[in-house]
Amino acid sequence: MKKKNSVFIATSLDGYIADKNSSIAWLQSIPNPENTDMGYVRFMKGIDALLMGRKTFETVCGFEVEWPYTKPVFVWSRSLNKIPQSHKGKAYLVKGELTEILNRIHQQGYGRLYIDGGTVIQSFLKEDRIDEMQITTVPIVLGGGIPLFSELTQALQFELIGSEVFLNELVQSHYRRKR
Amino acid sequence: MKKKNSVFIATSLDGYIADKNSSIAWLQSIPNPENTDMGYVRFMKGIDALLMGRKTFETVCGFEVEWPYTKPVFVWSRSLNKIPQSHKGKAYLVKGELTEILNRIHQQGYGRLYIDGGTVIQSFLKEDRIDEMQITTVPIVLGGGIPLFSELTQALQFELIGSEVFLNELVQSHYRRKR
Repeated sequence: MKKKNSVFIATSLDGYIADKNSSIAWLQSIPNPENTDMGYVRFMKGIDALLMGRKTFETVCGFEVEWPYTKPVFVWSRSLNKIPQSHKGKAYLVKGELTEILNRIHQQGYGRLYIDGGTVIQSFLKEDRIDEMQITTVPIVLGGGIPLFSELTQALQFELIGSEVFLNELVQSHYRRKR
Repeated sequence: MKKKNSVFIATSLDGYIADKNSSIAWLQSIPNPENTDMGYVRFMKGIDALLMGRKTFETVCGFEVEWPYTKPVFVWSRSLNKIPQSHKGKAYLVKGELTEILNRIHQQGYGRLYIDGGTVIQSFLKEDRIDEMQITTVPIVLGGGIPLFSELTQALQFELIGSEVFLNELVQSHYRRKR
C-alpha cells in the first residue's frame, strides 16, 4: 500500500491560513467566475482519506453546504468526545500519538492521506511526516492570523515539483520532501 | 520624479529571510552553475538607491566580496553613529521617522528605492509604503529565524504581476500593491 501524507492548502503572502478573526473569507477575494478548482479535484482523486483537527472539522461542519468529502475523514482530537450524529459514517474520531493514529489509519487500508488544518500540519512537520505540499499563495498580506508553519527543531528541505498561476493572481507551488 | 518602494528578497517556505543563526547559507542550497541572476540585474537597473537597516548593512559589509552596489545605499539606523571610513561615499546614514527620511532621500533625487532587510521592510509595510515585492521562495522549511513579515493592523492587498521558476527549484513571484 502506498503511504503518503499530503498537504493542499492556501495561504496569504505572509503565511496565514486564516485571518485574525479565524476567517477564510479573504480566500474569496480573487474572482473565480468559471469555478476553477485549481487542481483540487485531481488532488482529491489521489488520496484515500483525510486527517484533520477538531477546529478544521468544525469549520467544515459550519459551511453552509453539504458535507464536501467523499472519502473518510479522520478527526484527530484530544478534546472532542464523539463525532456528532449528523456526521456518523463520514467522520471518525482518532485519539493518540501521531505514529499510533497513523498506524491505525493505515491498518484500515488508507495510505495516502490529506493532512489538513494548521495544528495537524504543524504536528506532522515537527515529526517530519509531511511528504508533499501544494501551497496556493493568495496575494494579500494579512498581518496576523493562524499560521501554516510553526517552529521546528530542524530545517526540512523540499524540492519543487512544479508551479502554476491560477486566475492570474494565485501561485500554486507543489513541493516534495527531499529525503 | 517616479517614486516607488520595492522589495527584492528571498525567503524560505515558512517566510524566513535568515535562519535561527541569522545565516543565509541555506540560500546557496540550490546549485546555480551558470550564475543565473534571477532578475536581480534588471531589478537593480530600475532603482535609484537602496535603503536598508543597520543589520543588513553590517551583513553586506561582512561579505567576503567587494562592495556590491553601484547605487547609493542609505542606512536607516537609530544606533549607528556614523558610516565606517571604508564605506564613505558609498553608504549614507539616515535618521528619523519613515516619512521624514523618505522625503530627504527623494529631495536628493532618488525616487525608486530598493527597500531591504526585515526590519526596514516591516516598518514600510506597517505604514503601507511598499509598492512592489519580488519574492523568491526557496524550497526549505527553516522552522525559525528572522521573518520577512510581521504583525500589521490592516491587511494589504497585492496583485500578481508574474511568477517564474528559476533553477527548477525557486519560485519568484512579483507583486504590486493594489491601491
